[in-house]
Amino acid sequence: MSAYASLAGHFGRIAAMSNAIGILQWDSDVMMPRGAAGTRAESLALLRVLSHEMAVDARIGDWLADADADTGLGDWERANLAEIRRVWTVQTALPADLVEASSKAISLCEMTWRQARADADFAALLPSLTEVLRLQREAGIAKGEKLGLSPYDALLNDYEPGGRAAAIDELFDDLAAFLPGFTEQALAAQAHRPEPAAIEGPFPVEAQRALGLKVMAALGYDFERGRLDVSTHPFCGGADNDVRLTTRYDAADFSKALMGVIHETGHALYEQGRPADHMNQPVGQARGMSIHESQSLLMEMQACRTREFLAFAAPLMREAFGASGPGWEAEALWRRYTRVERGFIRVDADEVTYPAHVILRYRLEKALIADEMPLAELPAAWDEGLQALLGVTPPNDRLGCLQDIHWPSGGWGYFPTYTLGAMTAAQLFDAACRAEPDALPGIGRGDFMPLLGWLRTHIHALGSRYSTDELLTRATGRPLDAAVFKAHLARRYLDAAD
Amino acid sequence: MSAYASLAGHFGRIAAMSNAIGILQWDSDVMMPRGAAGTRAESLALLRVLSHEMAVDARIGDWLADADADTGLGDWERANLAEIRRVWTVQTALPADLVEASSKAISLCEMTWRQARADADFAALLPSLTEVLRLQREAGIAKGEKLGLSPYDALLNDYEPGGRAAAIDELFDDLAAFLPGFTEQALAAQAHRPEPAAIEGPFPVEAQRALGLKVMAALGYDFERGRLDVSTHPFCGGADNDVRLTTRYDAADFSKALMGVIHETGHALYEQGRPADHMNQPVGQARGMSIHESQSLLMEMQACRTREFLAFAAPLMREAFGASGPGWEAEALWRRYTRVERGFIRVDADEVTYPAHVILRYRLEKALIADEMPLAELPAAWDEGLQALLGVTPPNDRLGCLQDIHWPSGGWGYFPTYTLGAMTAAQLFDAACRAEPDALPGIGRGDFMPLLGWLRTHIHALGSRYSTDELLTRATGRPLDAAVFKAHLARRYLDAAD
Repeated sequence: MSAYASLAGHFGRIAAMSNAIGILQWDSDVMMPRGAAGTRAESLALLRVLSHEMAVDARIGDWLADADADTGLGDWERANLAEIRRVWTVQTALPADLVEASSKAISLCEMTWRQARADADFAALLPSLTEVLRLQREAGIAKGEKLGLSPYDALLNDYEPGGRAAAIDELFDDLAAFLPGFTEQALAAQAHRPEPAAIEGPFPVEAQRALGLKVMAALGYDFERGRLDVSTHPFCGGADNDVRLTTRYDAADFSKALMGVIHETGHALYEQGRPADHMNQPVGQARGMSIHESQSLLMEMQACRTREFLAFAAPLMREAFGASGPGWEAEALWRRYTRVERGFIRVDADEVTYPAHVILRYRLEKALIADEMPLAELPAAWDEGLQALLGVTPPNDRLGCLQDIHWPSGGWGYFPTYTLGAMTAAQLFDAACRAEPDALPGIGRGDFMPLLGWLRTHIHALGSRYSTDELLTRATGRPLDAAVFKAHLARRYLDAAD
Repeated sequence: MSAYASLAGHFGRIAAMSNAIGILQWDSDVMMPRGAAGTRAESLALLRVLSHEMAVDARIGDWLADADADTGLGDWERANLAEIRRVWTVQTALPADLVEASSKAISLCEMTWRQARADADFAALLPSLTEVLRLQREAGIAKGEKLGLSPYDALLNDYEPGGRAAAIDELFDDLAAFLPGFTEQALAAQAHRPEPAAIEGPFPVEAQRALGLKVMAALGYDFERGRLDVSTHPFCGGADNDVRLTTRYDAADFSKALMGVIHETGHALYEQGRPADHMNQPVGQARGMSIHESQSLLMEMQACRTREFLAFAAPLMREAFGASGPGWEAEALWRRYTRVERGFIRVDADEVTYPAHVILRYRLEKALIADEMPLAELPAAWDEGLQALLGVTPPNDRLGCLQDIHWPSGGWGYFPTYTLGAMTAAQLFDAACRAEPDALPGIGRGDFMPLLGWLRTHIHALGSRYSTDELLTRATGRPLDAAVFKAHLARRYLDAAD
């Protein structure tokens, strides 16, 4: 067997393990009875240990050296070798005792965080979060040494391969200078328009689910390779060819579940569209979290908060709930789905104010990893930063620096991908609409195929064939910048808001 | 770490893997979208290979030798060592290439069988079933050599540790001599009674599900450690502390799902009642398939086809479906649930005719493994055997020798456990009612605790602490014989059928 075939076989087995873990994780969140938590934790821990052992298998280095010398490989195989090397380098960068210490610290910190958040008590979280931060910093240093990166870039690299703080600083500084003034303008424009007429519930869960399934089908989701279920925290997970998404239903407000389903469907379409021939190989994986988030936001924010989408969806909504009246007209619904409001909570934010939440977290986590700021000062720095970026100050830390699980759960370096994703979504949707003139009119008819076809070709089916920058440049003609995102916001919230 | 502790840790990890496989298998049957079948097969194959590697780990033999010399172990630990040695001996008996060849042959044969059954075409199945049989025979020979057993006993041993064809022959010959005449008598007695008045559907699935849940709760099922779902083929599966059962609903006949749920709940109660302190150890597992089947049949046939149960359940049924009328009286329902009928299909058979189906299969598979009969003669031998045992001949092989998946899927040696289970159930229920005079009256009040308490103490919580024979002897005062089963049938179908 060739070295390449040995690698492909080995990483195929790692994918098979990862698929098993993905389904067990999904089950834990969606199906598992409470009393099984301990048993499940043992199974998942075992599979993760085995998966890690496979990922750092000593033979990989030799296979890579031999495969590099193989002149018979095609472009995809070469790209797969590069991804295998990248993944393997990251996996072998951390000593086992650091992985274990980090895993324990995270478990403790997540548990502490649930109570601390409920109590709005940052001091209660401080000791365990200090330990998580210390270990994250140590991990960043260890990975950074191996990769030739700063500790923060090394952490960022786990979520956004090739991502660099220097580039993000530039993009986010641009946005941070633009958004406060723009938000003022958008709110002023909004204040001059009548509020959309009310829509009255309750909205039965079964009707919401049926509506969600119809919209998923319209977007192009393949139900032969996935499902829609309910969980406390909506997510898109599962396995190769088994891309499952979840939502939660609020009988008083169907829009949350609907927009959530559209968001997760965007993620799922990416996963379902990964290259079939390389589905279980590193090169066949999604490129990174900013592209992933771009696919969810492209559907949720770019495609499905357009007047075109609501022209298609409004009749479906009325039919789903047997509703009628001025609030159910497409234009009123469009107004409802493009409301801007300054708030404290990131996950509730609209697309205009969302970047402020992200830029704040990005700047803070970068400073904390670089040890430029004591963790004890986080609450004050948070409040000050949010005031500067968004003009509001949370009344307590529950609505402030305690709101997200990312830091307690060791997800340092993740936050910027949300806003990189939003900007990428704008740039991709713009390019798609230029290349496929029927993309937007298609949405108006409930036909997402022109849009999805373009995404399949230019993003989904390319997996990790190219770097994020190259992928975006090939798709849109240029690397990421804030211009298209800003133009999109201006068009939607100033010009078009007649 | 002591050798015993090393073994316990190792077998704990094997249990964690087995629990992962159990949930993935459940998901395949209950939740998985069709397009994920290939991906799931790869994950399950990998986990099974890893599980097998753990089970034949070279260190186990050394640990066992050291642990045997450990004088500080208690009775449970000693029993665990014995089970570990038993499991390990069986696992190491088969060469890896035989396991792999068998697994492939089974996959092909199962696929072929689905079509062959639909077409009633035994000839289409013959080549792939010949291969499965050949490999089963080879496996029986390999295991038999290691265990000092005949090939058939070696296969039987996988499902019924300690089970021997010689003992089964005796029990089954006894039954086979008794049943044809008894069936005649039972049918004659039944013919003299009026048929139970009709009960009219449709029976909405949600109402059936709610009724099933109520009955499960009454039986003592712990919903914190399990779930009820729907699948094409009802089963009880899952993992330690996560005992999931399934059913399927027929809107025209609620009794199928209800009795199916009771049957699977019997299995589930056994699994949920295994010894908590040894849940993930070999000694903590269910004793074998005949005891397992005895627990399902004890609930379905012994406990829940009594007049007492129907006095409790009839009002629940009427309430569930908003029904009334003579067919819904407890006595009419009892008649309905104790109907005897000669049929072709094992899974549809009542408790009087069921053993004929099993004895037929047992005799045939024993002859086939022993190479005493060409596989091509199976259809003719089947028809002849069923005529002799039950007095009916199937019109085609779909209703004859093609009806069960057991042989195509490599389950040779499994069939006898159904009827051993039925006999064991009778013997255990009889002993429980003698020891706990409130067991049967309790059922009449929907209080299964007197019965369940006895089962917990004498069966469930003992796991694999004793052999099947010793377990039954300790619980009932004697090893298995057909006397109690025959007396039960006579009482229910002749005497009490006034």
